Amino acid sequence: MQIAQVRGTVVSTHKVPSMRGIKLLLVQYIDEEGQLLPKYEVAGDLIGAGVSEWVLISRGSAARIEVGQESKPLDATVVGIIDTVNVERNALYSKKEAERLL
Amino acid sequence: MQIAQVRGTVVSTHKVPSMRGIKLLLVQYIDEEGQLLPKYEVAGDLIGAGVSEWVLISRGSAARIEVGQESKPLDATVVGIIDTVNVERNALYSKKEAERLL
Amino acid sequence: MQIAQVRGTVVSTHKVPSMRGIKLLLVQYIDEEGQLLPKYEVAGDLIGAGVSEWVLISRGSAARIEVGQESKPLDATVVGIIDTVNVERNALYSKKEAERLL
Amino acid sequence: MQIAQVRGTVVSTHKVPSMRGIKLLLVQYIDEEGQLLPKYEVAGDLIGAGVSEWVLISRGSAARIEVGQESKPLDATVVGIIDTVNVERNALYSKKEAERLL
Amino acid sequence: MQIAQVRGTVVSTHKVPSMRGIKLLLVQYIDEEGQLLPKYEVAGDLIGAGVSEWVLISRGSAARIEVGQESKPLDATVVGIIDTVNVERNALYSKKEAERLL
Repeated sequence: MQIAQVRGTVVSTHKVPSMRGIKLLLVQYIDEEGQLLPKYEVAGDLIGAGVSEWVLISRGSAARIEVGQESKPLDATVVGIIDTVNVERNALYSKKEAERLL
Repeated sequence: MQIAQVRGTVVSTHKVPSMRGIKLLLVQYIDEEGQLLPKYEVAGDLIGAGVSEWVLISRGSAARIEVGQESKPLDATVVGIIDTVNVERNALYSKKEAERLL
Repeated sequence: MQIAQVRGTVVSTHKVPSMRGIKLLLVQYIDEEGQLLPKYEVAGDLIGAGVSEWVLISRGSAARIEVGQESKPLDATVVGIIDTVNVERNALYSKKEAERLL
Repeated sequence: MQIAQVRGTVVSTHKVPSMRGIKLLLVQYIDEEGQLLPKYEVAGDLIGAGVSEWVLISRGSAARIEVGQESKPLDATVVGIIDTVNVERNALYSKKEAERLL
Repeated sequence: MQIAQVRGTVVSTHKVPSMRGIKLLLVQYIDEEGQLLPKYEVAGDLIGAGVSEWVLISRGSAARIEVGQESKPLDATVVGIIDTVNVERNALYSKKEAERLL
C-alpha cells in the first residue's frame, strides 16, 4: 500500500453503471520522508476520509477485495485512515499532532 | 483511477477476435495541477467521451469489470466523464466552465 | 493499451512448458507524439505483425484474455495492428502512408 | 519480488473491515547495489520482520496468495526475511554480517 | 515480458509457507540496446538459469501460470532462457556468441 493525503474530490455523473454509488477522492502520494509527491490517485472511499488526512491506498485487484466492491471498476481504494507512521521509532506522522496544529 | 483528457482515436482492423467492437480512444494523462503529462493510454470507451473532455481511466483488471467487458483484452477503460475536480475547495476543473470557454 | 512499433524477435528454446508455441516479438513503445521511447516489451503475437508496423499492446492479465492464451504466462500481447492514430483530427500515424514511404 | 529494508510501522484504526488484524510495516526498497531507494511500500507482515532487516516483498495479487490472506486488500506483503544476496559470487548482503556490525 | 540477465541468488529461510521450495534468482533488466538497467527483480526459477545468461521474465499474475506455481506468492518468474534477440535482422544478443566470448 502507499501513503497518500486527501486533497479533494472528483465528481462524474455520466459514467459506466458499475461506477454508480462510489465516492471518489483525489489523494496525493506522500514519500518516505513525509513530503507530497507529484503523483496522485482518484480512489474510491468507503470510510469517509476527510481533506488533509493521511490514508492508506490499495491498488490493483486489492482495491476490489472489500465486500461489496467486487463488481466496481476500482483500481485504487482508501483502505484506512492513518493514525501514526513511525520510522526507526521516530514519528514521521501522527494524526493527533497534525490535528492539534490545524 | 487517473484523470486524462481525450485527445483522439485509434483504429485497428486486423486484431485478435476478442478486440472486436471496442471503440478506442487516445487519452493523455493529466497531473494533480491540471496539466497534460507526456503519458497516454489507448483506452476502451463505452460512454461516448468526446475530444477535449476530461475522463476517469481504470487500469488493470478493473478495466474489464463492467458487464460485457469481461472477455475483452482491455487493460484501460474510460469509466466516467468528469464534471468537476476540486482540490481543497478550489475548482481544478469544471466541465461546464471548460465548455463555456470553447 | 500502449502503442508500440515491432522492432524484432526473441527466441527461447529452453523454457517453461506453458511458454511453448508462443511467437515472441520485441516491440518498442511509442509516445503520444509518435516518437520511439527507450522502453520495450517482449510480447506474444497471435496476428502476425511485421517489423516496423505499429501495434497495440495489452499488458497484465489482459494479455491472456484471448481464447487459447489463458494458460500461457504472458504479461504482454499484441492485440491489434494499428491502421491510424488521430490526435485532434490530425493523423499522427497512418499505416497506408507509412507503407507508401518505405 | 523486490528487496526492501524494514524501516518502521504504520498504524490505522479507522479502516475497512477486511483490513483488520494486519500488521503493517513501512519498508524501503533497496537497489541492485544494496543502497536504499527513495521508494517505499506499506506491506502486510505475517512473519514478524524487525526494523533494519532485509525482506522480500511480493506485490499485486501475489500479496494475497498465502493461506488466510485471500480476502485482505493487500497489494504488498513481506514473504520472507533475507539471509543472503549474492551477486556473481560476492555477498551483497548477509544477515549474519549485518547483525554482527550492529 | 522483459529481458534480464541473471546476476546472482537470494536466500531466505524464514518465510511464509507458500514460499517454500522456490529457487530465487537476482536478475537485472536489460534495455532495448542490450545494456544493463539499474533495475532488478528477484524472480522464481523453474528452469535452472545460470549466472550471466539472458532470460525472459514474466511479471504479475503471469508469474504463477505455470502448473504447480498457482499457490506461490510469485510476482516475477523466469519463463525462458533466451537464445537470440534480433532487432531489424541484426543480432542484439546470441547465447552461442556470448558463451564463445567467455
